[in-house]
Amino acid sequence: MSILIRGGTVVTAEQSFRADVYCENGIVAAVEDGFTAPASAEVVDAGGMYVMPGGIDPHTHMELPFMGTVASEDFFTGTSAGAAGGTTTIIDFVIPSPQQSLIEAYKQWRSWGEKAATDYSFHVAVTWWSDQVREEMGVLTREHGVNSFKHFMAYKGAIMVDDGVLLNSFARAQELGALCTVHAENGDAVFHLQKKMLDQGITGPEGHALSRPPQVEGEAAQRAIAIANVLGAPVYIVHVSTEQATQAIARARAAGHRVFGEVLAQQLVIDESVYQHPNWQTAAAYVMSPPFRAKHHQDALWAGLTSGNLQTTATDHCCFCAPQKAAGRDNFTKIPNGTGGIEDRMSVLWHHGVGTGRLTPNEFVRITSTNCAQIFNLHPRKGTVQVGADADLVIWDPEGTRTISAKTHHQNVDFNIYEGMEVKGLARHTLSQGKLVWTDGDLRTVRGAGRYIDRPCFPPVFKAIDLYNDLHKPVGVDREVATAVTP
Amino acid sequence: MSILIRGGTVVTAEQSFRADVYCENGIVAAVEDGFTAPASAEVVDAGGMYVMPGGIDPHTHMELPFMGTVASEDFFTGTSAGAAGGTTTIIDFVIPSPQQSLIEAYKQWRSWGEKAATDYSFHVAVTWWSDQVREEMGVLTREHGVNSFKHFMAYKGAIMVDDGVLLNSFARAQELGALCTVHAENGDAVFHLQKKMLDQGITGPEGHALSRPPQVEGEAAQRAIAIANVLGAPVYIVHVSTEQATQAIARARAAGHRVFGEVLAQQLVIDESVYQHPNWQTAAAYVMSPPFRAKHHQDALWAGLTSGNLQTTATDHCCFCAPQKAAGRDNFTKIPNGTGGIEDRMSVLWHHGVGTGRLTPNEFVRITSTNCAQIFNLHPRKGTVQVGADADLVIWDPEGTRTISAKTHHQNVDFNIYEGMEVKGLARHTLSQGKLVWTDGDLRTVRGAGRYIDRPCFPPVFKAIDLYNDLHKPVGVDREVATAVTP
Amino acid sequence: MSILIRGGTVVTAEQSFRADVYCENGIVAAVEDGFTAPASAEVVDAGGMYVMPGGIDPHTHMELPFMGTVASEDFFTGTSAGAAGGTTTIIDFVIPSPQQSLIEAYKQWRSWGEKAATDYSFHVAVTWWSDQVREEMGVLTREHGVNSFKHFMAYKGAIMVDDGVLLNSFARAQELGALCTVHAENGDAVFHLQKKMLDQGITGPEGHALSRPPQVEGEAAQRAIAIANVLGAPVYIVHVSTEQATQAIARARAAGHRVFGEVLAQQLVIDESVYQHPNWQTAAAYVMSPPFRAKHHQDALWAGLTSGNLQTTATDHCCFCAPQKAAGRDNFTKIPNGTGGIEDRMSVLWHHGVGTGRLTPNEFVRITSTNCAQIFNLHPRKGTVQVGADADLVIWDPEGTRTISAKTHHQNVDFNIYEGMEVKGLARHTLSQGKLVWTDGDLRTVRGAGRYIDRPCFPPVFKAIDLYNDLHKPVGVDREVATAVTP
Amino acid sequence: MSILIRGGTVVTAEQSFRADVYCENGIVAAVEDGFTAPASAEVVDAGGMYVMPGGIDPHTHMELPFMGTVASEDFFTGTSAGAAGGTTTIIDFVIPSPQQSLIEAYKQWRSWGEKAATDYSFHVAVTWWSDQVREEMGVLTREHGVNSFKHFMAYKGAIMVDDGVLLNSFARAQELGALCTVHAENGDAVFHLQKKMLDQGITGPEGHALSRPPQVEGEAAQRAIAIANVLGAPVYIVHVSTEQATQAIARARAAGHRVFGEVLAQQLVIDESVYQHPNWQTAAAYVMSPPFRAKHHQDALWAGLTSGNLQTTATDHCCFCAPQKAAGRDNFTKIPNGTGGIEDRMSVLWHHGVGTGRLTPNEFVRITSTNCAQIFNLHPRKGTVQVGADADLVIWDPEGTRTISAKTHHQNVDFNIYEGMEVKGLARHTLSQGKLVWTDGDLRTVRGAGRYIDRPCFPPVFKAIDLYNDLHKPVGVDREVATAVTP
Repeated sequence: MSILIRGGTVVTAEQSFRADVYCENGIVAAVEDGFTAPASAEVVDAGGMYVMPGGIDPHTHMELPFMGTVASEDFFTGTSAGAAGGTTTIIDFVIPSPQQSLIEAYKQWRSWGEKAATDYSFHVAVTWWSDQVREEMGVLTREHGVNSFKHFMAYKGAIMVDDGVLLNSFARAQELGALCTVHAENGDAVFHLQKKMLDQGITGPEGHALSRPPQVEGEAAQRAIAIANVLGAPVYIVHVSTEQATQAIARARAAGHRVFGEVLAQQLVIDESVYQHPNWQTAAAYVMSPPFRAKHHQDALWAGLTSGNLQTTATDHCCFCAPQKAAGRDNFTKIPNGTGGIEDRMSVLWHHGVGTGRLTPNEFVRITSTNCAQIFNLHPRKGTVQVGADADLVIWDPEGTRTISAKTHHQNVDFNIYEGMEVKGLARHTLSQGKLVWTDGDLRTVRGAGRYIDRPCFPPVFKAIDLYNDLHKPVGVDREVATAVTP
Repeated sequence: MSILIRGGTVVTAEQSFRADVYCENGIVAAVEDGFTAPASAEVVDAGGMYVMPGGIDPHTHMELPFMGTVASEDFFTGTSAGAAGGTTTIIDFVIPSPQQSLIEAYKQWRSWGEKAATDYSFHVAVTWWSDQVREEMGVLTREHGVNSFKHFMAYKGAIMVDDGVLLNSFARAQELGALCTVHAENGDAVFHLQKKMLDQGITGPEGHALSRPPQVEGEAAQRAIAIANVLGAPVYIVHVSTEQATQAIARARAAGHRVFGEVLAQQLVIDESVYQHPNWQTAAAYVMSPPFRAKHHQDALWAGLTSGNLQTTATDHCCFCAPQKAAGRDNFTKIPNGTGGIEDRMSVLWHHGVGTGRLTPNEFVRITSTNCAQIFNLHPRKGTVQVGADADLVIWDPEGTRTISAKTHHQNVDFNIYEGMEVKGLARHTLSQGKLVWTDGDLRTVRGAGRYIDRPCFPPVFKAIDLYNDLHKPVGVDREVATAVTP
Repeated sequence: MSILIRGGTVVTAEQSFRADVYCENGIVAAVEDGFTAPASAEVVDAGGMYVMPGGIDPHTHMELPFMGTVASEDFFTGTSAGAAGGTTTIIDFVIPSPQQSLIEAYKQWRSWGEKAATDYSFHVAVTWWSDQVREEMGVLTREHGVNSFKHFMAYKGAIMVDDGVLLNSFARAQELGALCTVHAENGDAVFHLQKKMLDQGITGPEGHALSRPPQVEGEAAQRAIAIANVLGAPVYIVHVSTEQATQAIARARAAGHRVFGEVLAQQLVIDESVYQHPNWQTAAAYVMSPPFRAKHHQDALWAGLTSGNLQTTATDHCCFCAPQKAAGRDNFTKIPNGTGGIEDRMSVLWHHGVGTGRLTPNEFVRITSTNCAQIFNLHPRKGTVQVGADADLVIWDPEGTRTISAKTHHQNVDFNIYEGMEVKGLARHTLSQGKLVWTDGDLRTVRGAGRYIDRPCFPPVFKAIDLYNDLHKPVGVDREVATAVTP
Repeated sequence: MSILIRGGTVVTAEQSFRADVYCENGIVAAVEDGFTAPASAEVVDAGGMYVMPGGIDPHTHMELPFMGTVASEDFFTGTSAGAAGGTTTIIDFVIPSPQQSLIEAYKQWRSWGEKAATDYSFHVAVTWWSDQVREEMGVLTREHGVNSFKHFMAYKGAIMVDDGVLLNSFARAQELGALCTVHAENGDAVFHLQKKMLDQGITGPEGHALSRPPQVEGEAAQRAIAIANVLGAPVYIVHVSTEQATQAIARARAAGHRVFGEVLAQQLVIDESVYQHPNWQTAAAYVMSPPFRAKHHQDALWAGLTSGNLQTTATDHCCFCAPQKAAGRDNFTKIPNGTGGIEDRMSVLWHHGVGTGRLTPNEFVRITSTNCAQIFNLHPRKGTVQVGADADLVIWDPEGTRTISAKTHHQNVDFNIYEGMEVKGLARHTLSQGKLVWTDGDLRTVRGAGRYIDRPCFPPVFKAIDLYNDLHKPVGVDREVATAVTP
């Protein structure tokens, strides 16, 4: 089984060059201009197109049990929709209930993940703390290829953890060489404001945004960073949606700290006005946390990507259909939080990023794939186009246009947050493990074809941090304690 | 009983001018150049001196029961020492135990306060939350002249409160027109780091500083500000000791928020090197929270005062003698936290502030007295020199010099953190309620002469904030909820 | 000639209190509740009103010869319009032509100023440099009561000065104890962008704003501050209109530098959309420098006032009528720069400041009067309500409303930039030198009644800066220079 | 002529992996683990070593005529010393005198450059402005492979340009697709302060630092960035040495601007105390502009590199021997400005960067080579290890140690600013154009072997900026101008 991608321009995070890409047995076997492939090889014409590493989405929630229901998109439909948009790897989240064994939850999610059509991996959430949790973090890193742990600073009374847990978990991850990530919203503040809004008679989706103002995120991001800093640990903030959080990250980085930030494609282009929509169902469809923000935050987020202060782009793909959203008809706090978008991330980012001069094509690859692969230690197996890498590729048509719509998308949800948006730039073909899974509008994904990808601990930056911490270890004063105290 | 202060230069926060100051019945009765006083009036020669409002120390802990012992300085000795240094009013803290009635604690502290030699008032700490606490906050403001509440974000397992309590208390205070203050250190982080230091064998006083690094304060300050902001409430950060917290305040103020910051005189001039002192007893004497900091923080604090980002100066006067400090001989976490300094605040600030060109004399008055009086609603009864104000005055000799020492100070503690420091500028005479309580080295304070001062709610800035909040109240969307959901 | 203002609430920068204010011979003679005035005194009923120091406008250009024409408002009409709005003092600008004697220009302006109806003073611009200029700066400070010098960083080819002149002038002013002020726009950039806009065929008023983007101001503000800093001199930025300049000031202040900023009332409430007005004449009427800005800058400016990072409010009152503005019909660079507003500053600031909870009444007094008086050393003669101060007062009706219009204003210009704005809060009566010059809609100003006010050098903050500089003077290394150089 | 580098770990900016590197005809022909090279190939054992792209130094001044003398290091000796330290490409500066033809100067420098031992390229300085300069910039880009222009904001009266020139040149470069770089110091301020220091009797090298305080650089950096921003052009700040300039860059980047910063290796590790050296000759040896700074600036610079706010590292290699430095014995302004260091840059950065955990080995490659190649459009010919790239490589021994000294260095200067510094990590072998030019201490460079490298315009980021500018072009208002003006 081999494929020759012929005549395209290879675009990586670092460079662009004319080359054919030959894939064999799921691996890139040659990247060479004018490569002579075996006659048996299937040929894909990439003339006028860009051959890029497949997108990696570091933040999805397929078939997540959440707020009394289960996300409508499963691992097969979700990864398939991703493939149709040029994304070939996801990192989803194992979310144990408080008191639940992390291993047990991990195994549960692994079983759900088996239906995935493309490769996938898992972050594991730490939603409580005990010696068992500490122990199981070690087992997960050593035996199950998990090198990243997630923490929710919001969702009070459910999966929220306090600073004590953050400290214990960050310190434990640090000794394991794993990266901690946080959902940064002050859950106490959200809880307080939710009650306040309801008390004021604000029950609709607009209350969702009003109860999660930008400071609530900025505060939590700043706090997570400070906690990581006092330990000398790196930290990764998921779905940064505000100027405040972006600035907190920028400040920390400018002070030399290893802090990373992720932004959702939808937060870059959709603003909070959606919650004012006169149709409840439409407004509710946009309920996610953190919520959509006032327009000026988008400038900060785009600048975060061009400056390198934010490194990755994701979707937080977590789909709920209208009947599910309806649970919160009288009370916005009961609307299941989440929006879809895995299929559209790449096009939306290309159109609004590359198509507007905010990003170069190389930077596009960097923020949709390479940085994520490096931070979560999938690189260079994923995230680049080079001999020996997985043949997870997207052949990108920069001139192709499409209109995004729930009517035509492949996502298993009845709403598309980008409905009607015309985008220029799309995945013409997508390869996963060297096979065409999406080609010219034909979705050929296979249930269960995806593989779970182990992610080892200690990516390079961790070794540097460890060295730094070793050299800066605090030292006590060597003093003889006075035996008698003179009053 | 009347006194004429003759021939001095009156210095207020706003202006300096030649005038005699005549006091009668504890009140300033005239401020007039060449005033003709009754023949019976005692005359104080203020030639070559500055007549200023007496200092107000917004942060003291007289006879505080803390960490298993009781602060050595009581309300009489403490206010007397203050008078010797030119301070005529203190605002001390009522600190109820968790679960204790605020009223009960308040009454306890009132009874202790009765021995005070000069006027005093109380902040009340909110160390837990319940309907009773909410109710008692109201009683305190309505019936007991309390308009400020204190919150500890540190001291985990003792008086620390979590963000939920902060939100409840800030919101309650806001509706009462009272100001919330916070001790900003992340108690979870301190707890974690204390354990880490002890685990590493660092048991001496240096471990105290190492377990409370600057980020621990910066984080908490930022958090308290964010929590206040989401409520639209003002907030006051006590003992700001770091560049990080100062910047958090400056950022919030530059964004239009009503945030106030206090700095301790000692933090402006003493740095963390004290914890490296080879003598344990000496190092332990400097243990306080937040700890002394690296020298560069002092620049930020001074600049905070000149820029107006920080408004007040205090001492956190909380004295423990060597035998008390000795409780932590083997474990720094058991050293009672606190240092003295009420007697020296004014001289230290003058010498290092005015004497170095960092502050004008008017600014000195502003940061030692006027701002505090305005923020805590004692103004213009306190904090200025004008007809009708309390005759709490200090006649300041800008040329006088003294060497600070425990051997000569009037504080009831066996150590002086400024030991050996020569300062130029001192209180030549101090008047409390129109009486000379300190004159040319003679301390004449009277046990119990001090009065408890009621501080009403709603100082001017609160009314503005209320108006602002009213005008910016969130509004819900008026929509008909779809009766049927279309999938 | 005496007046008793009865029954009002005196509002100063520091406090509010019930008191009658008695004025005699142009001076405040008593501020006392229930004051018994001589029977001959005229009585003004101030019931329900605020008695405040008259506004001081630190930035006006009456009858300025500029861009080939002369501003339509003269010293009499201009100060009269000011009085109708509650402003009782202006500081105008002497602007010598390059190569012109400063003294000569000063005398010219003094002669023009003689027709003023209320008190006035002059800043003097330094538009070129030579030994003569240096010398004349000294003469102006010693003999003519000038303590502030203005510098234009814009208007290339006319009155713009380069950094070399700034350095010479700032250093000279520093030794004289005078304050330097700057118009902060990068004139080279403006010149370049003007040409670029015209080359692109943009000739209308919108080109004015496009050729002076925010960075052009931010850059110059930052530069002026840096130049002042390297000399250890204070600096005052006139008409700060951008977030960038505000932040530059905030950063400098937070670093301990003595930097001041002024904001124009109109920049707080009018945005750049005026330049898009379809009517050329209307759009042209708003042409001033710096131009009106995008709306988000207004938040930064308001926050600058509440935080104290910006201290004063002005108008840059400089009126040109439509036929004058028409000079730039085909080329925006020829539209005379300037807008009016001296009559409306106080109402606009009250309505949009106090009426929205952004400012307290005391802060209103501070930013319309007191700060200006202190910075430019008119205090306490001006800027406060106290015995001995000039009886320049405004009796403010917080409930009075009016609709601003060119049809009814007293300014000598055919356009009002606030046309149609309804404001609540207005000057019911205005006193200048103890005389009613505006009372209940009746304007009684007298041509030539205004006095030129000397402003002595070395206000308090300068003495502190001098002390600081003395203590931080650089010192050379004492070394013996090697006599022989070893290669 | 072929070489096989066997058994090493290839380290690029993106990844590290075991591979042999085979070079043929000056080009990397294979990068493959276990590569079978022709028997004729010379074999270099890289066991235990890193195979990295040779260093690129973007800032050198070989044989520069400056301040009345000529830099002692010529293109042969300088590039040879570079090779001994692992640097294989330099970008030097053509510096025309004001009024001199750029082409003429360029040709002069090209003739000097012919003796270079390794590849080199040239930035060209714009030191004056005219139509001829504008024209010649075009010729240089089209015909001579120049894509970067340098501007001096310092050296008043010599090569300093004012903002008008910056604007013209930046705009011209932008239309050509070339990058502008600036030496950011306010030359007027330096001039003023030099005079001030001399007037105060400070004539020694310490006066050099005192006359160029950090604000002088921060101001100019900020200004250059603002000027670039108003044009929508990118800009590159050479030798950033201060926290202020680093922050200016960080702020601009966080706002989405394409701003780049370079730092000198020596500024990261040497501080201003050198100017206090009692030996004049030693102190003078450190005179360069900008000068060495207070220690805390180093933290900001290191953090700039780890955060990505600063991208490149250079040396500003410009050597003057003691007899040359002696010209300023009585007047620091006459000491020729410049220090050496091309030989030591890589070791110093590895030891203090990688050896302390501040940088990973990949980041080391990025900041010593790859970023520079990308920014100045030498990539992927230079700056990476891949098939087809120039075989400019360094085989790095991370365990090798050496003591830096003028006694042993290969630089043609009598002083080494790192004298006595022990470093771990050194170039064991260096290849230029596929030939060993430095191997185990044996320097084999050949005079004239280096090639001039053309650098084409429009690297990818420029195309994005152009697109962005196109989409954001200002538009005029379409209005009919009123024919009659109504007064």
